[in-house]
Amino acid sequence: MTHPALDLAADHPFGIHNLPYGVFDHGGHARVGVRLGDHVLDLCSIPGAEFADAWAQDTLNTFLAMGRAAWQSARAWLTDLLTDDGERATVEEHLVPLSDVMLRLPFRVGDYVDFYASEHHATNVGKIFRPDSEALTPNWKHLPIGYHGRSSTVVVSGTDIVRPSGQRKPPTESSPVFGPSVRLDIEAELGFVVGGAQTELGRPVALAEAHEHLFGVVLLNDWSARDIQAWEYVPLGPFLGKSFATSISPWVVTMDALAAARVPLPGQDPEPLPYLRGEPTADGASTAYGLDITYEVDWNGTVVSRPPYRTMYWSPAQMLAHMTVNGAITGPGDLFGSGTISGPEKDQRGSFLELSWSGQEPVRLEDGSERTFLEDGDTVTLRATAPSPDGSVIGLGECTGTIVSCQRNSD
Amino acid sequence: MTHPALDLAADHPFGIHNLPYGVFDHGGHARVGVRLGDHVLDLCSIPGAEFADAWAQDTLNTFLAMGRAAWQSARAWLTDLLTDDGERATVEEHLVPLSDVMLRLPFRVGDYVDFYASEHHATNVGKIFRPDSEALTPNWKHLPIGYHGRSSTVVVSGTDIVRPSGQRKPPTESSPVFGPSVRLDIEAELGFVVGGAQTELGRPVALAEAHEHLFGVVLLNDWSARDIQAWEYVPLGPFLGKSFATSISPWVVTMDALAAARVPLPGQDPEPLPYLRGEPTADGASTAYGLDITYEVDWNGTVVSRPPYRTMYWSPAQMLAHMTVNGAITGPGDLFGSGTISGPEKDQRGSFLELSWSGQEPVRLEDGSERTFLEDGDTVTLRATAPSPDGSVIGLGECTGTIVSCQRNSD
Repeated sequence: MTHPALDLAADHPFGIHNLPYGVFDHGGHARVGVRLGDHVLDLCSIPGAEFADAWAQDTLNTFLAMGRAAWQSARAWLTDLLTDDGERATVEEHLVPLSDVMLRLPFRVGDYVDFYASEHHATNVGKIFRPDSEALTPNWKHLPIGYHGRSSTVVVSGTDIVRPSGQRKPPTESSPVFGPSVRLDIEAELGFVVGGAQTELGRPVALAEAHEHLFGVVLLNDWSARDIQAWEYVPLGPFLGKSFATSISPWVVTMDALAAARVPLPGQDPEPLPYLRGEPTADGASTAYGLDITYEVDWNGTVVSRPPYRTMYWSPAQMLAHMTVNGAITGPGDLFGSGTISGPEKDQRGSFLELSWSGQEPVRLEDGSERTFLEDGDTVTLRATAPSPDGSVIGLGECTGTIVSCQRNSD
Repeated sequence: MTHPALDLAADHPFGIHNLPYGVFDHGGHARVGVRLGDHVLDLCSIPGAEFADAWAQDTLNTFLAMGRAAWQSARAWLTDLLTDDGERATVEEHLVPLSDVMLRLPFRVGDYVDFYASEHHATNVGKIFRPDSEALTPNWKHLPIGYHGRSSTVVVSGTDIVRPSGQRKPPTESSPVFGPSVRLDIEAELGFVVGGAQTELGRPVALAEAHEHLFGVVLLNDWSARDIQAWEYVPLGPFLGKSFATSISPWVVTMDALAAARVPLPGQDPEPLPYLRGEPTADGASTAYGLDITYEVDWNGTVVSRPPYRTMYWSPAQMLAHMTVNGAITGPGDLFGSGTISGPEKDQRGSFLELSWSGQEPVRLEDGSERTFLEDGDTVTLRATAPSPDGSVIGLGECTGTIVSCQRNSD
């Protein structure tokens, strides 16, 4: 007797090495599950489930707050359960086909910060937005630049994205005009989900402690209206050009599942200040590690870019240490984005601003059409994978969204 | 028989015209109360209290979500109750002296946005931070500039403020240094508390509807580390220079209580785009009104400034309409700050950066000491009042905080 979720090929991206967490709705109530192949394991209903109370909730936040020891214990329990032939019938009873569930936003977002950690992206944007200045600002290699975004508009993959309206100032006009954004873009990012107990005001998280607070990752699309952004962002940064929507993938892949994806950073010169310096770990690596995650950006069915996360300048632990070095609180459900992932090559750029070089070099899709920025009805899907301990890959799933006209709202 | 809360002088700042809401802890559990003189009225325990369930909570959020009709009904019920001699014994039974309670953060903060709505402040800061450019950026008079702040570090008045550490780059150094901020500042602001049902993604709040979502105001101190901010803020805006703490007063004064404080804006030229234009109201005023709130900034016992809120360029309704014009969601517990309130005169400036002109002109306190930025042990208290319908004033209370050394954390 075989079951499609229990007899997955050893190299299935949602096999035993992955075990990402999400929140699913089945039968009218939402609770925490783990993805296994094309099924969801309904955790809280399994007899003896160690964290049944936390898993019975409609967000991951309670489980996130329990901290690393609980996360590791849960992973060990799940691995035992799924590899014990004697438990097979029990497990099968609690598997729900993905096609039968609705996936929800996996956690209630606390504070949301977006970083700017790709040197290639920051350089490209600097050249496009500030052609008369140095591409990288003087602070860029000394600290991971970041800013706060709007938590309430973080939405789960599959949510339609209403084209935002706002002010923009075409170079040919003396005053701004108002209307739907005509330069609607994506930013392909990795989002880091914070867990553990809420920290105390005035107590930074040291880089060496960051792993206690890093629960896992999601794919993140920081939809961006470049025309709104360009007009508003001096001097206090992006606001309405970003705050209309941020999409995340439904499955949170844990940092433990990503252990085999850890790689050294590409190199930091000048050496950062001590609070941002990695330290050697027992296995000879560094606490400031990168991640070898391979991304693809799909635009209406054409893969237009493959941004390599391993090229990112700043590490997740460095971003978390920086975010709290002033004593800011961080707690379960906080989310921080890496910033757009762009590699050194043109087909590794994580935004259409860069891919089309501000609209000057259209991108040709497989249907023969050309694009610079997003048109109504366009669908963008981000997908990613990471190396698995057995040499295959684990899946990060996908993060998708379709642009709908803002005229919808005047119907 | 008299009771100090029921026999207040007609012009008492926390008399019958005010009725601000807060959350107080008495006897080990926190719930919603209304301030009356130097007492708190324990709402949920009063027989027949219309919103007893919402008022029994330890935040205002449930009551905020109920919307304007509920807020107005509650105000009418309270006014009747407090002016009905037959209810006197009932009311007295549910009054708790302020000295016996702990005041809590009055609401769970959703998204927090900080605006920059004072022309005098923006001009001063422009001259100080960007001496080689026009003081106001080209967008300033076309839109209320704003950015998102950190919700989890919004704290209630009275909370100690730990001096933040971070990177700064002294002009004499070629690289940044790390350490406690040496230019720690305040920003005297008004904070607007959002209520009503959460809006739908993609559906802006029109300016004419803003009053349905504006519940009330708090005093807000946006503590700012100017040295950290100056080094980090280009190109994505303030981050760690602000995110370590934002203090708010414990009592939320409702927009209904501020009806007599409404004044025309000082004037907007050029005329803003249509979505930011006020419309005439039935009483001949405008939906884009200002507020005649008189502020004082007290530094260790010396009032060093009296910023006049009526000089603010952008109105609260304009800020809310702008914040959501791109389709961003807003919901109960969202908070937006006005930005520093500075008037045209030197003794009307709402930050020490401006009062000391970036440290060049020290401020003399009554104890004979001189200050430019905050020293450890310094206490700053903001206080404000607004006109009341009977010609006296209503109080907005105070927002206070004392600076403590970050060395505390290495004890």
